[in-house]
Amino acid sequence: VDKEQIFTLMDSLIEIGAYYHLRGFSLATSSNYSVKLEQGKYLITVSGRRKERLTRDDFLIVGEDSSPLKDDTILTIIPDNASKKPSAETMLHARLYRDFPERVSSVLHTHSPLAAVLSRRIGEGSIRFKGYEMQKAFPGVETHEGTVEVPVIPNSQDLKELSKNAAARLSQMPSAPFILIAGHGIYGWGKDIDEAERVMEAAEYLIDCYWHDMTNKEIV
Amino acid sequence: VDKEQIFTLMDSLIEIGAYYHLRGFSLATSSNYSVKLEQGKYLITVSGRRKERLTRDDFLIVGEDSSPLKDDTILTIIPDNASKKPSAETMLHARLYRDFPERVSSVLHTHSPLAAVLSRRIGEGSIRFKGYEMQKAFPGVETHEGTVEVPVIPNSQDLKELSKNAAARLSQMPSAPFILIAGHGIYGWGKDIDEAERVMEAAEYLIDCYWHDMTNKEIV
Amino acid sequence: VDKEQIFTLMDSLIEIGAYYHLRGFSLATSSNYSVKLEQGKYLITVSGRRKERLTRDDFLIVGEDSSPLKDDTILTIIPDNASKKPSAETMLHARLYRDFPERVSSVLHTHSPLAAVLSRRIGEGSIRFKGYEMQKAFPGVETHEGTVEVPVIPNSQDLKELSKNAAARLSQMPSAPFILIAGHGIYGWGKDIDEAERVMEAAEYLIDCYWHDMTNKEIV
Amino acid sequence: VDKEQIFTLMDSLIEIGAYYHLRGFSLATSSNYSVKLEQGKYLITVSGRRKERLTRDDFLIVGEDSSPLKDDTILTIIPDNASKKPSAETMLHARLYRDFPERVSSVLHTHSPLAAVLSRRIGEGSIRFKGYEMQKAFPGVETHEGTVEVPVIPNSQDLKELSKNAAARLSQMPSAPFILIAGHGIYGWGKDIDEAERVMEAAEYLIDCYWHDMTNKEIV
Repeated sequence: VDKEQIFTLMDSLIEIGAYYHLRGFSLATSSNYSVKLEQGKYLITVSGRRKERLTRDDFLIVGEDSSPLKDDTILTIIPDNASKKPSAETMLHARLYRDFPERVSSVLHTHSPLAAVLSRRIGEGSIRFKGYEMQKAFPGVETHEGTVEVPVIPNSQDLKELSKNAAARLSQMPSAPFILIAGHGIYGWGKDIDEAERVMEAAEYLIDCYWHDMTNKEIV
Repeated sequence: VDKEQIFTLMDSLIEIGAYYHLRGFSLATSSNYSVKLEQGKYLITVSGRRKERLTRDDFLIVGEDSSPLKDDTILTIIPDNASKKPSAETMLHARLYRDFPERVSSVLHTHSPLAAVLSRRIGEGSIRFKGYEMQKAFPGVETHEGTVEVPVIPNSQDLKELSKNAAARLSQMPSAPFILIAGHGIYGWGKDIDEAERVMEAAEYLIDCYWHDMTNKEIV
Repeated sequence: VDKEQIFTLMDSLIEIGAYYHLRGFSLATSSNYSVKLEQGKYLITVSGRRKERLTRDDFLIVGEDSSPLKDDTILTIIPDNASKKPSAETMLHARLYRDFPERVSSVLHTHSPLAAVLSRRIGEGSIRFKGYEMQKAFPGVETHEGTVEVPVIPNSQDLKELSKNAAARLSQMPSAPFILIAGHGIYGWGKDIDEAERVMEAAEYLIDCYWHDMTNKEIV
Repeated sequence: VDKEQIFTLMDSLIEIGAYYHLRGFSLATSSNYSVKLEQGKYLITVSGRRKERLTRDDFLIVGEDSSPLKDDTILTIIPDNASKKPSAETMLHARLYRDFPERVSSVLHTHSPLAAVLSRRIGEGSIRFKGYEMQKAFPGVETHEGTVEVPVIPNSQDLKELSKNAAARLSQMPSAPFILIAGHGIYGWGKDIDEAERVMEAAEYLIDCYWHDMTNKEIV
C-alpha cells in the first residue's frame, strides 16, 4: 500500500465521518474508524478528533499491539506518526483484525442513540432480526427468512477485557455481522471499507426497525 | 430516445438516489430505480450499487425479459451494457411496465424503515389512508375525503412469484398508487419520473402519518 | 415594487421551499408560499411545482380575486404571467391579505406530517401551547407564561368555504399566530417574509413539542 | 485578542449556528452563543438574528454588565458595536463567565424540542444520566459507570433572577456539565468553543437517549 492509496483510504473514512455525524451517529468526537493496510498495519483515526471535519492529519498507522508505528516507510507517509495518539479503543479494532482476518479488513464504530439505548437495556445477551429484506445487506445472507443474531456485551473502560469479551462472543456467533456494546454503540466490519459501510448502514437500519417495532406493538 | 435523453434520465435517477439515501430510504445499496425508454426497453440501476453516489456507469438497459440488451444501438450508448448485472428485482419492474403500460413509465423502489416495519406487521393485506390532503398527490385523486387503499404482499426471494403476486393484487386494486412488500419496502410508479417521484414522496409521507397516528391513539 | 425587488422576494421563497422540503414539510409538490407586493397584488407559487427546486419561473402575480394579473407593468416583469396557473389555495392567501392587512404581508403554507396527524385527530377546535419559551417567537408574545391558542378548522376542497371559515375563526381569535387545517397543514403569516418564516418555524417546533409531550405522559 | 482572532471566533460560531439550525436546535431566531475574549469582554450574538445565516455583522462585544462596549479598541474591530443590541439572555452568559471562570470560556445555548419538553415536565429539579459511554464527552468524566446529574431550573423572563438561580444551582452541583431551563432549552459551556461544542452535542445526545429510554420501558 503506497502513499496515494493510503490518502485514498483516509478520504473514504473522512467522508464516512461527515455522513455519520450528520446522521447523529458520531457526535461529540465519539466513534473511530480503521482499515487494514496489511496484516499488522492499520490506519485508524486519532483519539478525540471531531468526526464531521476529519482531515488527513487525523489518522495514524498502528501495529498489532495498537501503538503507533515508527519505521521509516511509515514516517515518509505520516511524518508525525510516532507522536500521534490512537483512540483507546484501537485495541478492539486490532483484536478484530487479528482474530477474524478473513472477514475483517475495515472496522467502523459508531455511537447511535438508539443502539446505545437498546443495548444498555439489554446489558448482556443478543438481539435477533427476522423478516427484513435488509438482512441481505450482510455478507452471506441470501434471504429475509433467516434470523440475524448479534451479540450485546457489557461496556467496560478496561479495553483489554472488552476486546477479549467481544472476540469470545464473536467466536461463538461466527455469522454475526456486527456487535453491540451496551450503552455505547456498534462495531461493524467488512472485507473492505465498502462492505463495512454497507454493514453499518444495514445495522443502523435494523436497529431503527427493531426499535419502532417494539415501541408500537398494537399497530394493525 | 437518444443518448443525450438517456443521460438526462440517468441524471434524474442519480439525484433521486442521493435524496433517498439522505432520507434513509435507500441505505446499504438497497433500492432500485427505472424508467421506460420505449415498450420493452427499460433503463435501470445496476445491482448492488450505493444509491447516494450513483454515476452514469451505474445504469444498464434491459428488455422485456429483464436481461441486458446487446444490440448495436444500445452498445453505442452504454458500451458495456451486455456485461452489466441488473438487480434481481428488475423482473418486478418489467412486470409493472408490461401489465400496466398506461400508467407505469417509471418505477421507484425504496426500503424506508417505517414502510418495512409496518408492512412486516401486516404481512399480507392492505393499508388504508383517509382524511389527508396529501392523498391528492396521487394521480386521479381529487379530494382528501376518499380512501386510498394499497396492497401489502408477502416478501419472497422468488422474484417470479413476487412479480406475479404483485401484478395480481394490483389488478384487483386498479386505483392503488403504490404497493408494499412486507418487511421490504415500497414500489411506486408514474407516467414519468416526475410523477413517480411525487407518488413516492406522498407514499412516504402517508406511511409516516399512519405510523404516528397509530402510535398515539389518545392524543387530544 | 420593481423587477429587482420582486426577484429578491422570489429568491427568498425559493430558499424557503428548499429548506421546507428538506425538513419534510413541503413534499410531493405540496405547499404554497406568497408575499404581498401592494394591497391587491400578490406574488405566489405556481400550482403543482416541486418546492425543493423552485426557480423564478415558478411564480406569478395575482390580484384580489386570485386570478393572474395581465396589465403591462406585470407582463414586463413576468411575460407569461397571464397564462400561469396559481394554486387552488391562492384564494385562502388572498383572504388573509384582505381581512388582516395590518399583520399579513406574507403567507407560508406547509404540510408537515405531525401537523396533519394532530389536526386530523382534532378535526375542528383549537390547540393550546403553554410554558414554552419559543412562544415568544410570535409577534406580541412577551412571555412563556401565557397560552398561545390556534384554531383547527376542517379541510374542504371548496376553497371559498375554507377561506371563509378560516377568516371567521381568525376573527374570533385575533391573537392566533397561525391556523391548522385538519389533515392538511399549517398556514402562517407575518408582516414580511422574515416574520412569516419565524412564525412557521416556531409553529413547527411547538407542534413537535406538543406531540412529544402528549406521547409520553409518564416521563419523570 | 486581535481583529483576526475575533473574526475566526465569529466564524466558528457562525458554523455552529448553521449546524444547530439544521438539527432543529436553533429555530426561529432562538438561541445565543458567546465566547470570552478576556475576563469582562465577551463576544456574543446580536438579539433576534436567524442562526442559520449568521454573518460577522451579527455579533457584538459586551462587558461584565452585559452592555455593549464602546472603547476605541472595540470600535476599531466592530464600528457599530455601541448601537448593537445583545440578547436579553446575555446576562446569564455573563454570570456563567463571572462565577465559573476556570471552566467557562464559551457558552452555547439552544432550544432543542426534546430538551424543552423534558425540562418543562420536570419544572424544577434535575436529570441523571447513567450507563452511557457518551458521558465521557464531559470534562473530567472517565467512565460510563458514574452518574452525570444536571440541574433543571424554572424559566423566567426576569433574566437577573434566572441568572442568579442558575448560578446558585450550579454552585451546588459543581460537576454538572450543562443546565436545563424548563420549557426553554440547554445552556452548555467549555474552556473554549471546541469543548463547549462537544459538551452540547453530548447533552443533546443524552437527552435524546433519555427520552427514548423513558418512552419505551418495556423493550426487551
